[in-house]
Amino acid sequence: MKALVYLGGGNKGIEDRPKPKIASPTDAIVKMVKTTICGTDLHILKGDVPTAAPGRILGHEGVGVVEEAGSAVTSFKPGDRVLISCITSCGKCEYCRRLMYSHCVDGGWILGNAIDGTQAEYVRIPHADTSLYHILDGEDETPFVLCSDIFPTSFECGVLNGEIAPGSSVAIVGAGPIGLATILTAQFYSPAEIIAIDVDDKRLAIAKAFGATHVINSSDGKAAKAVLEITGPRGVDTAIEAVGIPATFELCEEIVGPGGRIANVGVHGKVVALHLENLWARNVAITTRLVDTVSTPMLLKTIRAHKLDPARLITHRFSLADVMQAYETFSDAAKTGALKVMIEA
Amino acid sequence: MKALVYLGGGNKGIEDRPKPKIASPTDAIVKMVKTTICGTDLHILKGDVPTAAPGRILGHEGVGVVEEAGSAVTSFKPGDRVLISCITSCGKCEYCRRLMYSHCVDGGWILGNAIDGTQAEYVRIPHADTSLYHILDGEDETPFVLCSDIFPTSFECGVLNGEIAPGSSVAIVGAGPIGLATILTAQFYSPAEIIAIDVDDKRLAIAKAFGATHVINSSDGKAAKAVLEITGPRGVDTAIEAVGIPATFELCEEIVGPGGRIANVGVHGKVVALHLENLWARNVAITTRLVDTVSTPMLLKTIRAHKLDPARLITHRFSLADVMQAYETFSDAAKTGALKVMIEA
Amino acid sequence: MKALVYLGGGNKGIEDRPKPKIASPTDAIVKMVKTTICGTDLHILKGDVPTAAPGRILGHEGVGVVEEAGSAVTSFKPGDRVLISCITSCGKCEYCRRLMYSHCVDGGWILGNAIDGTQAEYVRIPHADTSLYHILDGEDETPFVLCSDIFPTSFECGVLNGEIAPGSSVAIVGAGPIGLATILTAQFYSPAEIIAIDVDDKRLAIAKAFGATHVINSSDGKAAKAVLEITGPRGVDTAIEAVGIPATFELCEEIVGPGGRIANVGVHGKVVALHLENLWARNVAITTRLVDTVSTPMLLKTIRAHKLDPARLITHRFSLADVMQAYETFSDAAKTGALKVMIEA
Amino acid sequence: MKALVYLGGGNKGIEDRPKPKIASPTDAIVKMVKTTICGTDLHILKGDVPTAAPGRILGHEGVGVVEEAGSAVTSFKPGDRVLISCITSCGKCEYCRRLMYSHCVDGGWILGNAIDGTQAEYVRIPHADTSLYHILDGEDETPFVLCSDIFPTSFECGVLNGEIAPGSSVAIVGAGPIGLATILTAQFYSPAEIIAIDVDDKRLAIAKAFGATHVINSSDGKAAKAVLEITGPRGVDTAIEAVGIPATFELCEEIVGPGGRIANVGVHGKVVALHLENLWARNVAITTRLVDTVSTPMLLKTIRAHKLDPARLITHRFSLADVMQAYETFSDAAKTGALKVMIEA
Repeated sequence: MKALVYLGGGNKGIEDRPKPKIASPTDAIVKMVKTTICGTDLHILKGDVPTAAPGRILGHEGVGVVEEAGSAVTSFKPGDRVLISCITSCGKCEYCRRLMYSHCVDGGWILGNAIDGTQAEYVRIPHADTSLYHILDGEDETPFVLCSDIFPTSFECGVLNGEIAPGSSVAIVGAGPIGLATILTAQFYSPAEIIAIDVDDKRLAIAKAFGATHVINSSDGKAAKAVLEITGPRGVDTAIEAVGIPATFELCEEIVGPGGRIANVGVHGKVVALHLENLWARNVAITTRLVDTVSTPMLLKTIRAHKLDPARLITHRFSLADVMQAYETFSDAAKTGALKVMIEA
Repeated sequence: MKALVYLGGGNKGIEDRPKPKIASPTDAIVKMVKTTICGTDLHILKGDVPTAAPGRILGHEGVGVVEEAGSAVTSFKPGDRVLISCITSCGKCEYCRRLMYSHCVDGGWILGNAIDGTQAEYVRIPHADTSLYHILDGEDETPFVLCSDIFPTSFECGVLNGEIAPGSSVAIVGAGPIGLATILTAQFYSPAEIIAIDVDDKRLAIAKAFGATHVINSSDGKAAKAVLEITGPRGVDTAIEAVGIPATFELCEEIVGPGGRIANVGVHGKVVALHLENLWARNVAITTRLVDTVSTPMLLKTIRAHKLDPARLITHRFSLADVMQAYETFSDAAKTGALKVMIEA
Repeated sequence: MKALVYLGGGNKGIEDRPKPKIASPTDAIVKMVKTTICGTDLHILKGDVPTAAPGRILGHEGVGVVEEAGSAVTSFKPGDRVLISCITSCGKCEYCRRLMYSHCVDGGWILGNAIDGTQAEYVRIPHADTSLYHILDGEDETPFVLCSDIFPTSFECGVLNGEIAPGSSVAIVGAGPIGLATILTAQFYSPAEIIAIDVDDKRLAIAKAFGATHVINSSDGKAAKAVLEITGPRGVDTAIEAVGIPATFELCEEIVGPGGRIANVGVHGKVVALHLENLWARNVAITTRLVDTVSTPMLLKTIRAHKLDPARLITHRFSLADVMQAYETFSDAAKTGALKVMIEA
Repeated sequence: MKALVYLGGGNKGIEDRPKPKIASPTDAIVKMVKTTICGTDLHILKGDVPTAAPGRILGHEGVGVVEEAGSAVTSFKPGDRVLISCITSCGKCEYCRRLMYSHCVDGGWILGNAIDGTQAEYVRIPHADTSLYHILDGEDETPFVLCSDIFPTSFECGVLNGEIAPGSSVAIVGAGPIGLATILTAQFYSPAEIIAIDVDDKRLAIAKAFGATHVINSSDGKAAKAVLEITGPRGVDTAIEAVGIPATFELCEEIVGPGGRIANVGVHGKVVALHLENLWARNVAITTRLVDTVSTPMLLKTIRAHKLDPARLITHRFSLADVMQAYETFSDAAKTGALKVMIEA
């Protein structure tokens, strides 16, 4: 089968690989129908993710059709259309039973990382019963592709941890795909203000179209002041970091109000300055989280009830044969305007 | 009347001052019976608290007897014995109505800071109805003195924010008075392990007597390793910072487990390194808080039900006339072994 | 001044009364601008509310202008436009400090009940600082009139206690004014299904226009079956009782699913059969509540952010001089189609 | 093998049965070491549990040694000592993933009910990985037997649902085994008052020894009055029903205070009168629950940390050969004083 493979040293390529086989009775083999590319895939290509060795098939998102199910799989059978969670969950370990699938002792984020992933014709899914979700007859698969990772991530790490509430004020720092997904899911809770902050006016325009009540271009270094002009000197109830660099996290520290929350969504590679000399008496909470995908069933319900349309994030479509071009388009988002690229079998 | 006054430049002295008067119909004048000294008083003396100007009568803790009540005070009358909260709460503003008395727009921590305090024969208490608590007939006042500040602080900032739960593991970094009060109130929730960490073996011995299940002397710089030997590689459910310096906060970052919490109690004067490059995917929460004293009614109930004995922290007793000596004893705790010093009228 | 007075024996009339005076330094006198009639006013007229004696001026809702403020009132001054809470809160007692203003020991629901109310030219508001809310310059008062009682009631007793969540299923039994307000505020949390149940097709049509995803006319006694056809045999996550009679409460018992909640909003006069023989193992919660109006500040924010338009409930408008006719219209809702009637000074 | 079998018509007997076999790859066969009898077993014998057909081996509690593990079982192997949960959990279904194992679509309470149980030499445990818990080397099995059912039941249905908190007041109606287990686990949260109510002075004496601060013999029908004399007219914060009849539930309705909770633990066979005419405005919550056993890992930690000693409930010990006599002793508790009887292989 064809697969997109990380070759090490910043390189990737399409390779011919043997079709995966059931390795454990709880596995399923899924024939991929649609997949996409995540910012984390780019991190792997840069060599930033030590668990992903050269030779790895990339990808941890997608929908497909069950090709084969292991003998202990009871919830899925060949022919079932499925959504693949980016997080593999055994359903048995202490973390799974605390609903922290991200830290599953026999799973977590392993797809396209410690084991081969979804940017291929077929993928092996361990612990299929607790890592796949049914797509119903007649449903378009497209929106579900974005429920593998980006929507549960924005919702769990940003919206839930940020405790967004009716009437509250929210600032979302970063209007890339994950920030935009946060803007969409934040509206589940009817906040009064959603302030989107980014350096790219085009993304801010999309943020506005997606429901931001205010947008701030932070290129001038005065975003904190601009936020406090909107909220009054108190600041926001929730500040969501959706970039992953020290400057944006510190901006969150400046704008969060007493009793507020900073919900980190970004993937960080560096230490950040925590200004406890200001914050120790400010009654704030700072949260971090690798997505657990515990909210996936809920997200599916909101999509089916037309409360959420994830497909709004899709800007480009490619066939799997053109996956190299899909990577180029996605990597060069500033120029191409790519948010999420859909890759179809 | 006699009062202990901050003179600026590291100095303090006993001065003769006029007895305070009712300034607003919601004020009460309280004749002090017992007070104590807080680590924050030492911070003021060092010049670290800009809101506390030279000339200020220090002290924000204590019990006394109502001498006079303003015309709008309805819950207290002359002769009532009262506990004084370290936090003044108007009961009306947005923060008070969100139970964040610490950020009251006409209160907060002002006693012995922005207005004259309790280390004197009399003190004026603004918003008396919502800043005082009744001491019942026949009750010994002694334990209540420690409910002005140290016990609500340790309980709210440490135990409540740390979400200590039955069977959980807790590390308390710092076994000074506030850390020891945290050890006592943590036991309200029956954690399985309470690990006390300090550099002073004498304090660790007290920690053990107060209920710590393990003690670690961190002088050798290997405290994190020692914690992980106790808990296994996962770390603790709750790490409580009760010192207020970067090193102890960073120790909390090293020992908190996935899904765990770091509850900051310490007063910090410097920026701290937040290792988001490790913590971003660890599903942790970090909380800060200036005590709100919303738990005071609950703490009084636990004392009256003999579930908590705050007086265990009292090591020395002085008369108000000897308050200068009380400060010396309290300041030189390493030598004197002082935890809390009781100052009686 | 003119006032609508309960005369006992089912009778009411317009009387001339002296303008109220400040009785306590925490009182304010408010000149009424707009008021409305509540189902509870009809209960009083029927003699069902023993605390409301003949001679009482009715009404516990409305907006007005502060005419005079007692000497201890700090947040309001003459000329301020204000929303009057139906619940009087002293801000000091144990219940107020637990955010249960409904059980305030010197307040609660007393307006138009134990003391004279708002269906008059002027009203005395005790504990003004904690029982009034500012209306901002330039704002239309109309929607705020419905924030005195009906919107906080539907939101707190129904939506909050029902723990409505994104993607969840909700049944609201009763599509009168309170049920309709529940339908509007339920949408703050983006449930997947909102099933409105009533015996009146006209009200069900409004329910649908207000956001109900399904409507069921329960006249045939088969509403439970109809709900289970929508949700599957499991039933709803939240069943909200918004009528106040045994039959509708028992319907909630039949349709609530495992792990679900029954949130009672209705005012009940009779004992209800609780089928614990079915429910003991069903992991349900049943909640009751007299509105606390703690959500009022939040509701004002959602109105200002255009997330909620309470004025949609207003069907008729009268002058205070025509208040008798307003009562007739409101009482005969089945014929007049009245939901909320606005009474203007 | 020998097994205690329900014969229908109120009868039971010891029968010879074939040793159970693995029926599914997720099963384990456990050789029983210790088991006990539950009040529910007596209900089955009376014919009150329609899912339990004549011929059923009774029992849903116990510890044993894994004899054989199915091919898909990964957490347990032959020779492992295990605690058997009374609730079978597949770990995969919607309810299991919401931590409501009680409603597992392929489990729930089935042991000794819909499938053969633990009062035998061997038992087949479906979904072994998610329905068994390890007993560590060197640990005495005795206390763990009571963690199959009675301790998680009292803790989850009573203490957790009752939201017992430090300083709060709790009334526990019924001082049988489940009420006594509730008294023990309530103390995890340091309530100020634990009021035990029963008609049997001997049980009340045990309640007192177990930590009740007050005991009330309700034989005179004046228990409500006696509770209100202890708490003041407000009533208790938490009332726990641990009997299962209308009278005791209604007693809970009389003594619960504003803002309080009624947590039902009892198994009810009859409709109960819910006095909504009093409770609608009282801001109470009423909860029901079939134990989920989600707290089992936590309970094991508290036992290992010596915060809980379940063995205090054991009053009699029998060999499996004498299980008929064990039933007699347990059934006739009023005379024998039996609380929990231990049955050992």
